[in-house]
Amino acid sequence: MFRNRMPRYEILSEDAMATLDKGWRRLMTEIGIEFMDDRALDLFRKAGQRVEDKTVFLDPDFVLEQVAKAPSEFDVQARNPEHSVHIGGDAMAFGAVYGPPFVREGEVRRDATMEDFRNFTKLAQSFAALDSAGGIICEPSDTPLDSRHLDMTYALQTLTDKVYMGNVVSGVNAADTIAMSSILFGSRESIEQNPATISLINCNSPLRWDDRMLEAQFEYSAANQPVVLTPFILMGAMSPVTIPAALVQQIVEALSGIALSQLIRPGAPVIFGSFLSNIDMQSGSPTFGTPESGIGLLCTGQIARHFGLPFRTGGGLTSSQVPDAQAGYEALMTMLPTFLAGANWVMHSAGWLEGGLVAGYEKFIVDVEILQMLQHEFTPLEIDEDSMAFGAHEEVGHGGHFLGAMHTMERFRTCFYRPMLSSSENYERWMRNGGKDAAVRAGETYKKRLEEYEAPALDDAVRQELEEYVVRRRAELGD
Amino acid sequence: MFRNRMPRYEILSEDAMATLDKGWRRLMTEIGIEFMDDRALDLFRKAGQRVEDKTVFLDPDFVLEQVAKAPSEFDVQARNPEHSVHIGGDAMAFGAVYGPPFVREGEVRRDATMEDFRNFTKLAQSFAALDSAGGIICEPSDTPLDSRHLDMTYALQTLTDKVYMGNVVSGVNAADTIAMSSILFGSRESIEQNPATISLINCNSPLRWDDRMLEAQFEYSAANQPVVLTPFILMGAMSPVTIPAALVQQIVEALSGIALSQLIRPGAPVIFGSFLSNIDMQSGSPTFGTPESGIGLLCTGQIARHFGLPFRTGGGLTSSQVPDAQAGYEALMTMLPTFLAGANWVMHSAGWLEGGLVAGYEKFIVDVEILQMLQHEFTPLEIDEDSMAFGAHEEVGHGGHFLGAMHTMERFRTCFYRPMLSSSENYERWMRNGGKDAAVRAGETYKKRLEEYEAPALDDAVRQELEEYVVRRRAELGD
Repeated sequence: MFRNRMPRYEILSEDAMATLDKGWRRLMTEIGIEFMDDRALDLFRKAGQRVEDKTVFLDPDFVLEQVAKAPSEFDVQARNPEHSVHIGGDAMAFGAVYGPPFVREGEVRRDATMEDFRNFTKLAQSFAALDSAGGIICEPSDTPLDSRHLDMTYALQTLTDKVYMGNVVSGVNAADTIAMSSILFGSRESIEQNPATISLINCNSPLRWDDRMLEAQFEYSAANQPVVLTPFILMGAMSPVTIPAALVQQIVEALSGIALSQLIRPGAPVIFGSFLSNIDMQSGSPTFGTPESGIGLLCTGQIARHFGLPFRTGGGLTSSQVPDAQAGYEALMTMLPTFLAGANWVMHSAGWLEGGLVAGYEKFIVDVEILQMLQHEFTPLEIDEDSMAFGAHEEVGHGGHFLGAMHTMERFRTCFYRPMLSSSENYERWMRNGGKDAAVRAGETYKKRLEEYEAPALDDAVRQELEEYVVRRRAELGD
Repeated sequence: MFRNRMPRYEILSEDAMATLDKGWRRLMTEIGIEFMDDRALDLFRKAGQRVEDKTVFLDPDFVLEQVAKAPSEFDVQARNPEHSVHIGGDAMAFGAVYGPPFVREGEVRRDATMEDFRNFTKLAQSFAALDSAGGIICEPSDTPLDSRHLDMTYALQTLTDKVYMGNVVSGVNAADTIAMSSILFGSRESIEQNPATISLINCNSPLRWDDRMLEAQFEYSAANQPVVLTPFILMGAMSPVTIPAALVQQIVEALSGIALSQLIRPGAPVIFGSFLSNIDMQSGSPTFGTPESGIGLLCTGQIARHFGLPFRTGGGLTSSQVPDAQAGYEALMTMLPTFLAGANWVMHSAGWLEGGLVAGYEKFIVDVEILQMLQHEFTPLEIDEDSMAFGAHEEVGHGGHFLGAMHTMERFRTCFYRPMLSSSENYERWMRNGGKDAAVRAGETYKKRLEEYEAPALDDAVRQELEEYVVRRRAELGD
């Protein structure tokens, strides 16, 4: 997996950090956080925290004590051990887009299907730059709602041998994910010992944790499965319009969720989550790849490190409806700061389109190209005598060229990043080849990848047990 | 003008800098640099440097003595004093694309004309994010070759009131630029005192300065006009394939040119130039917006600061033939590191397409949007009590929204960057509005901008004198 050994780009001064520190402590103490789940309220009450109705007024120092119980780094196992990931430190793990109800291929935008889900899962499997297909790569509208999570989990388990995300729609769905993961990895003990899923717990920002998400969190944290406690903030709607206010709110929300996980099971793995952008103040539309989200992203990394927690943020986000120039620059406007901040768990790394409403086939390829480029760019230079190539200058002299120099010949295959999508063909050649823009070429690339896809091997007995589980549970759920 | 008060992102360790230091000293001493101009060779010889044929073997410490004579920061005056620029320190000045023989508008790619040149000049005037139209925004093929520089300089002087670049095709052209600038700014003394042009002197890399460029450099440096001494390096062709080798070569080339300017006129303003990318090793095509160019860019900033020199690098570079997703991500792949490095003089900030062969109208708008976003992003956050908006939380409470909060109402007009090009319209609305991608919208934007263009006022007598100069010189040049 990718390790980011380049420096972190940090933009908050010590003074700024101290001001934010005062801010989140005040917000947590005086406004508090709502937890729409009685078990959560009981746990906080028993731990000596003030609870009024559904609101918990947390003592910041108590919260930091809980946070200190969480591991700063941990592993998540994949069924192919080569694809297991480390979460934290300089490790960065990348998953595909999560949640879109629609897909786009070429000019067609339509409801997502299970076939789309499988296709994107296969694409995620086929690119080494991605560590995970994620979870809900798209919402398969042609499968029954109550048992859909079984189909998705089964697809993630069988079509990829990478880590996958757990379903969080309800506690029941979470329990099914854990049960299916216990089958895949041999037993519940196995996955409690070596976590095998990561699950996204979104806050209903501002300052409210909802019941269904909390149910899922209880299941996962009890089973020692990592949860990503994620404030979901579009500044101007779910937080004040000022970035410092959003940062402070984000700290309160993430840390309060993390504290709950530690009360459920001390030492349970958690990730400081961030999903931070802003709305367009004229239309109220969510906007992505904005300057404000870039700043927020850089700050988030610094803040998470301050608390000693692995963190999730970033991705290839864009508001654009199609994989055009806007989609290209907005995706990078999010993804480059993601690398500068060194995010540990990066959702939405491939396929995000139209503010997350659409999983785009072509955009998937655009994003993987960006990801590959950045993984290359954020690999430290080796600077030594050999790399300065004095001998090549002796060979070539003034005004010559290095195309045929020995130093070049020895390195030409691997010296530069080789694009998968980007074209540098000269105009005449490009026209002869059809004058295709990046979106058209991306369309060809994903189709070819799907044709070439090979399913990773899986033990027949395990597959059968998974299938039986799906069939039985589907019947029980009445679908 | 824009001041970059964010931290610089530096990736070279002290050890790496020391290794590069040894490298450039050795290359300069043992391989030397060719200067295809006898006056240059004479100056170096008289200064005690070893000259063999056209090759100068420079003593690195002598070079550093010369470099120390150059100002670390300086001003360039525009005829509208509000548009004068500072070069160096935290100031970043942005100019349009420079050099393309072709233009693209929509589906049409064709030879550039003087009308195009004027159009792009007007566009550059109309966007506050740009400090300069640059110099040769496109090569106007419908004007006579020998007097073309007069037409271009006249257009830059009259259609904009921003700083502009000097012509460098020959010493004669440089002298004409200086004469016309002397008219515009009152006298040669005026521009010698307060420089009024910036000129690009490209190295014929590796390690050769050509005669025509040197002729221009002699004119400009003698007149105290800033020159940008720029190694022109596509790694794999004009330098070895390894980035450290390119960096070392770049230092030798830039510093040797800077030393020459100081011998011509001690204290003459100079800019450490860099144009650094790589070729595709399979096709030999130049490639832009690559990971390698991003790394080179970040290193270049650090190196230029090490020598106490203002520096030029970056822009909105791309290999793409059209303003598509690739153009979007490659442009930002260059421009974001440009901001991280804090480049002082940024050419090719708007309009660069197809490896610099094409000035793109739509791409111009895409690039200005990127530029505006980054100028917004690289403005430090204010973090204080007020920005944390505690009162807004008291007003809104848990699970509410901030759209109507007082804190929001007071700030909604200015709180976020307002896109000029990017769309966040929901799908239905976007479709009702024609389903236009970013390139199509950019086409509408540039046409509207051209319609709305207003020429900056210019004294009639000055305009007449400039016109007379152009007419007279055109006749003398036989066009």
